[in-house]
Amino acid sequence: MTPERLARIKATLDRRQPDLRVLTDQIHKPRNISAVIRSCDAFGVANMHAVWPREGYRAFRKTAGGSHHWVTTHTHADMAPAIAELRASGHRIYAAQFSDRAIDYRDADFTQPCVLVLGNELDGVSDEAAAEADQHVIVPMMGMVESLNVSAACAIILAEAQRQRSEAGMFDQRRLPDEEYERLLFRWCQP
Amino acid sequence: MTPERLARIKATLDRRQPDLRVLTDQIHKPRNISAVIRSCDAFGVANMHAVWPREGYRAFRKTAGGSHHWVTTHTHADMAPAIAELRASGHRIYAAQFSDRAIDYRDADFTQPCVLVLGNELDGVSDEAAAEADQHVIVPMMGMVESLNVSAACAIILAEAQRQRSEAGMFDQRRLPDEEYERLLFRWCQP
Ligand SMILES: C[S@@+](CC[C@H](N)C(=O)[O-])C[C@H]1O[C@@H](n2cnc3c(N)ncnc32)[C@H](O)[C@@H]1O
Ligand SMILES: C[S@@+](CC[C@H](N)C(=O)[O-])C[C@H]1O[C@@H](n2cnc3c(N)ncnc32)[C@H](O)[C@@H]1O
Repeated sequence: MTPERLARIKATLDRRQPDLRVLTDQIHKPRNISAVIRSCDAFGVANMHAVWPREGYRAFRKTAGGSHHWVTTHTHADMAPAIAELRASGHRIYAAQFSDRAIDYRDADFTQPCVLVLGNELDGVSDEAAAEADQHVIVPMMGMVESLNVSAACAIILAEAQRQRSEAGMFDQRRLPDEEYERLLFRWCQP
Repeated sequence: MTPERLARIKATLDRRQPDLRVLTDQIHKPRNISAVIRSCDAFGVANMHAVWPREGYRAFRKTAGGSHHWVTTHTHADMAPAIAELRASGHRIYAAQFSDRAIDYRDADFTQPCVLVLGNELDGVSDEAAAEADQHVIVPMMGMVESLNVSAACAIILAEAQRQRSEAGMFDQRRLPDEEYERLLFRWCQP
């Protein structure tokens, strides 16, 4: 490993946000999961949580541009326990979901510890998860098609979260807990 | 056609932006083109321009969520004439491209007549097109992977363009020329 590479790894870890997470609700296309993970990496999200589709899930490694290596993936059996666990660890639950109570994503406060819940390609966020969410956020659209691709919605919302956290100075100081920092530093330095 | 459907079509056409365009430089994955078109539809882009990859191009209709129907696609043989034509019609050329002269996409003025040039999955924007561009715009990233998926970058930048144009009141009044408006209204009303 070159000194430049090590410096880059450390700089990335220094900006990782432990309290900005993504939770996917049975997204089933590997390429969408891949693109979500790639955006997580780009915008400082260290942890991605997933409830995999019932019909099982194929590998997504190839199309992620290698980003699966840089984002820790947590599997949950169901949305209810996933949300309960994330809430218990202090996260607000923001569901990317069309509804009467949905607000513009730019009006949500992403400097709070929070998890962005993304729904699947066909059914969106499942009913129970949507009901459980603290807030529904949407990217306003003005076209004929009813929704964005889920990875496009994810990219847009995470870019806004990063903008807000950047303004709040949340990338200026290391925020990962020591244990997670050391563990990731060790793993990322493996060839 | 229901009156609601017709009203929706008209409302969409009323917000279409004739002078906000996208030009893709040999993007070769159909799913990426599809996602780009879907974001165009969502953010008011009426016209998508493309130079297809040399190795030819397969259909992308299936995965576009039907959005190919709502965005007019223009094919160009090469980037140089495409850029020349768009510039001649008054558009500034903004290339989504990493370079020394790249600026944060939020600092670019998308209320100007402009075209967003997107590069392909492997080589980015081709050299001649990058050299021709008035400005290079990038979405700042803080991860280990070097780039976003092209459709993610497109979604983020068009969402910003829409935000700027919305603030500037550019969606409050119809902006499509009569001829294009009538032609699209007719076509969109076909079953
Ligand atoms: C293709 S959409 C699912 C559409 C589904 N038919 C529905 O009605 O919810 C997949 C996911 O992408 C996200 N999404 C798509 N467009 C969005 C938008 N404009 N704002 C926020 N989230 C969006 C949501 O999480 C959604 O569940
Ligand atoms: C996968 S990238 C191509 C990467 C290519 N290896 C390069 O170095 O340019 C495909 C296209 O997505 C767009 N893109 C990806 N990430 C971007 C970012 N952070 N800012 C602006 N555009 C981006 C650019 O247009 C780029 O040409």
